[in-house]
Amino acid sequence: MKKIQQSILLAGMMASGKSTVGKLLAKKLHLPFWDTDQEVEKSRGKSINQIFAKEGEAAFRRYELEAIEACLAKGPAVLALGGGAVCSKAKLKKLSQAGSLILLKAKPANLIKRLQDDQSRPLLKGDLEKKLSKLLAKRESFYQSIPFKVVTDDRSPDELAKEISQRLISEKSALWVGLGKRSYPLYFLKNSAKLLPWILKAHLPSKKLVLVTHRLLDSMYGKNYLKALSKDFEVSKIILPDGEQHKNLATMEKLYTQLVKVGADRETTLIALGGGVLGDMVGFAAATYLRGVPFVQIPSTLLAQVDSSIGGKTGVDLPQGKNLVGAFYQPKLVIMDETLLKTLPKREFVAGLAEVIKYAAIFDGELFQNLQKRMKSILATPGKGMEDIIRRSCEWKAYVVEKDEEERSGLRSLLNFGHSLGHAIESLSSYAKYRHGEAVAIGMIYAAKLSSHRFGFPQKSLEALVNLIKSAGLPVDFPKYSHAQYLNALKQDKKRLSDQINFVYLKKIGQAFTQKTDLSEVLQIL
Amino acid sequence: MKKIQQSILLAGMMASGKSTVGKLLAKKLHLPFWDTDQEVEKSRGKSINQIFAKEGEAAFRRYELEAIEACLAKGPAVLALGGGAVCSKAKLKKLSQAGSLILLKAKPANLIKRLQDDQSRPLLKGDLEKKLSKLLAKRESFYQSIPFKVVTDDRSPDELAKEISQRLISEKSALWVGLGKRSYPLYFLKNSAKLLPWILKAHLPSKKLVLVTHRLLDSMYGKNYLKALSKDFEVSKIILPDGEQHKNLATMEKLYTQLVKVGADRETTLIALGGGVLGDMVGFAAATYLRGVPFVQIPSTLLAQVDSSIGGKTGVDLPQGKNLVGAFYQPKLVIMDETLLKTLPKREFVAGLAEVIKYAAIFDGELFQNLQKRMKSILATPGKGMEDIIRRSCEWKAYVVEKDEEERSGLRSLLNFGHSLGHAIESLSSYAKYRHGEAVAIGMIYAAKLSSHRFGFPQKSLEALVNLIKSAGLPVDFPKYSHAQYLNALKQDKKRLSDQINFVYLKKIGQAFTQKTDLSEVLQIL
Repeated sequence: MKKIQQSILLAGMMASGKSTVGKLLAKKLHLPFWDTDQEVEKSRGKSINQIFAKEGEAAFRRYELEAIEACLAKGPAVLALGGGAVCSKAKLKKLSQAGSLILLKAKPANLIKRLQDDQSRPLLKGDLEKKLSKLLAKRESFYQSIPFKVVTDDRSPDELAKEISQRLISEKSALWVGLGKRSYPLYFLKNSAKLLPWILKAHLPSKKLVLVTHRLLDSMYGKNYLKALSKDFEVSKIILPDGEQHKNLATMEKLYTQLVKVGADRETTLIALGGGVLGDMVGFAAATYLRGVPFVQIPSTLLAQVDSSIGGKTGVDLPQGKNLVGAFYQPKLVIMDETLLKTLPKREFVAGLAEVIKYAAIFDGELFQNLQKRMKSILATPGKGMEDIIRRSCEWKAYVVEKDEEERSGLRSLLNFGHSLGHAIESLSSYAKYRHGEAVAIGMIYAAKLSSHRFGFPQKSLEALVNLIKSAGLPVDFPKYSHAQYLNALKQDKKRLSDQINFVYLKKIGQAFTQKTDLSEVLQIL
Repeated sequence: MKKIQQSILLAGMMASGKSTVGKLLAKKLHLPFWDTDQEVEKSRGKSINQIFAKEGEAAFRRYELEAIEACLAKGPAVLALGGGAVCSKAKLKKLSQAGSLILLKAKPANLIKRLQDDQSRPLLKGDLEKKLSKLLAKRESFYQSIPFKVVTDDRSPDELAKEISQRLISEKSALWVGLGKRSYPLYFLKNSAKLLPWILKAHLPSKKLVLVTHRLLDSMYGKNYLKALSKDFEVSKIILPDGEQHKNLATMEKLYTQLVKVGADRETTLIALGGGVLGDMVGFAAATYLRGVPFVQIPSTLLAQVDSSIGGKTGVDLPQGKNLVGAFYQPKLVIMDETLLKTLPKREFVAGLAEVIKYAAIFDGELFQNLQKRMKSILATPGKGMEDIIRRSCEWKAYVVEKDEEERSGLRSLLNFGHSLGHAIESLSSYAKYRHGEAVAIGMIYAAKLSSHRFGFPQKSLEALVNLIKSAGLPVDFPKYSHAQYLNALKQDKKRLSDQINFVYLKKIGQAFTQKTDLSEVLQIL
């Protein structure tokens, strides 16, 4: 289990369960536990009732803050705070920065039930129901502004401690794409529907969501997400047709029309649940509907998880070519859920592996070895147990995007390894015979061979790459089109530039470079 | 004449005219003139020939730099530099920062003609033609990287001095919209075709341009621009249909297709020559074609000059509403050319005045008085002599855009003064009877009346506003639709929000504020 390095501060009304849950949570996370009310009593040598009676609430709040600070000074811990501890803007800010501030919520009726026989609460003396409701009203706005909320009604302290620890670990293990103000986290989760509402609340001001997905994905996962989200959000759903042939302006127009219809405004967040094509279109809609609304990616294919969902490339095709219209527009966050991959058709999953192999080939010898070792188990159950590999791929993609967001310097173009010939093969076969990843697999083998021929990329490494691609079940044989056909396809792909392309070569496994290369040279070992 | 505060440094080959033109330019701009070759001879007490012969070129270059620095230290001046003075990266950088560095260019044949009998040039001793061409080849890349170039062939020194001084003044008088890395200048020019190539070269790396305009504008101005630009650029032209009814995704698709056809790539700059509708569409194409290409606005209407060309709002309409699809995407520069307005239909011009009056009403009592005084002459010849008024309006628009680029804070919404009812009137009359500015004029009068009614906006100021709007020839009478129709139209306009709108009120002439107002209250004085 990963270690939590920061303190966890539990806030909420009296009797919401802070102490009970806090103790269990502390045990789970191997952290000390402090009840700050008890710490005040210890340090002052008086009960809270006595302090309130003799010195008043203001004095108590002072002692309380001192006690919190003393606890925090001892190092990471779980703290159960007094119910009023967060009820000033200054304190709220301070405590939010001191660690993970979490609100435990319970229905007033449940609180009353738990408090009926408790005489130790000075603020509730008298008509319990009336006092409690007055106190709640006073504290409500402070409680509401804590993004990390946990509803405690109808759940056991054990369940609550488990949920909170899971959430905390997801948060700690999120990978951030660093783009200044437009930075965003990638969350690595299993069965993400459960945690999604909390994550969205933590990152977005939106109350309205529009889930955009395909019919099939909707039937498999849509309901889960809708159910989980509809507790906290007003959620609409839009179904887009599946397939690259629909990635065009006509589909965009329908999508825009649907967005108007469901009443999406500038604060509405679009959620793309689907593969790369859907993500590109929903991202482009987010970039352009009302001149820009927030969006979230939940990529449902391996290819989309390790590649297209990161980096903000959005857009559609024109009849004249792919991705000719679009925008660079970053999501607010991305959910990488390996459990979505288990229903992915095997061939689609394997095609996604081509991009994983690509990262290994151009950047990461260690990942390459890892793939060599584990290919069999990776193929056994799509997605299962490969979070580390997905994460590593995402780290590389995020690294490239951070350095070269709009593909202006050379770095991002390294990601085109295998893609020059790959695109040509896709185009020559009319995008029908090969999946993108399959064409890229063949293109990588060609590029590696050309690297050997022109720059001495070692024969052994070439064989290792071919074997790894084979072991994944990806095609390795070059389709038999004529030299003239390949030349033409390469020209088409880069028709707006010269007769040269920035070809990506391998120096060794884990290291690539680009060089401007005449098309004739590119094809010389065909 | 405006004063040039910076030194002007003339570079170029020997005999390109630096001294002759420099002297005339210095006289025109009331600046001292220095010939740096002569300054070297003076300070060393030897001719250049002697320095070269005895001490070599390196020594001369050292003396030359000292002489330049000595001249610059005395304050703003015109300097004629030696031909080799800019021929190192370090020097080029230094001299570019020291003032306005300008290259005088001439055809080699003309240089040879002028140099034939000159024995004072040590670098040209021997076969003149051969030496000159060798020298040119050596210096070419340095010369080319000076953005401000003047071709001297076939033009008299007087003409050249005049052109350079005009260009310099345009540069100095440009108004910058400050948006960090995305800052851009607004140039205020007359007959801008002539200066445009130079301005584009100064601000853009593009060699390819696509001029997008309407049929009518093309016939009036297109040829001028194309002729001027085609000397330095590869220029294509695309004609878009005129009218708001074409501001949709179908027209965008045609525009994208044309862009592919003319071979526009990521470095190609789009130039929008037209009114607001065209500017919005070309801007959106620039934002989305190949995920973003540079673009330049040359607004041809008063409305576009003072409003829509500044601030980066781009986009198209959907059948469900105006501007529902688009992007915030800033141009690289905007050309405000008052001479384009002289062919603008009078009604269109007057409609544009409504937005000028709006800036005066909400921000600028002085501009308001200025308009009151000068309305008659403003209406006499559209555009003529109103650069100051256009500029002042642009300053306000730029100010608002700088503070609130994406309309997130309240400031930009002040620009909606008169627009709530204006939009309702446009919509109720199916966008047929009233031009946008006309509807806004009526809307402003209504908003001013409501300001009087609810917040004591002075009666006298209300009358002044009504009179100013009348004097411009704008409509003032409220069209007779029912209360229910207005209510419905207001709701439609803001259908994705609540039954309140952020209504813009006047406190006094030159000062506005917004307040959330129930629609029923908005309509209470109808």
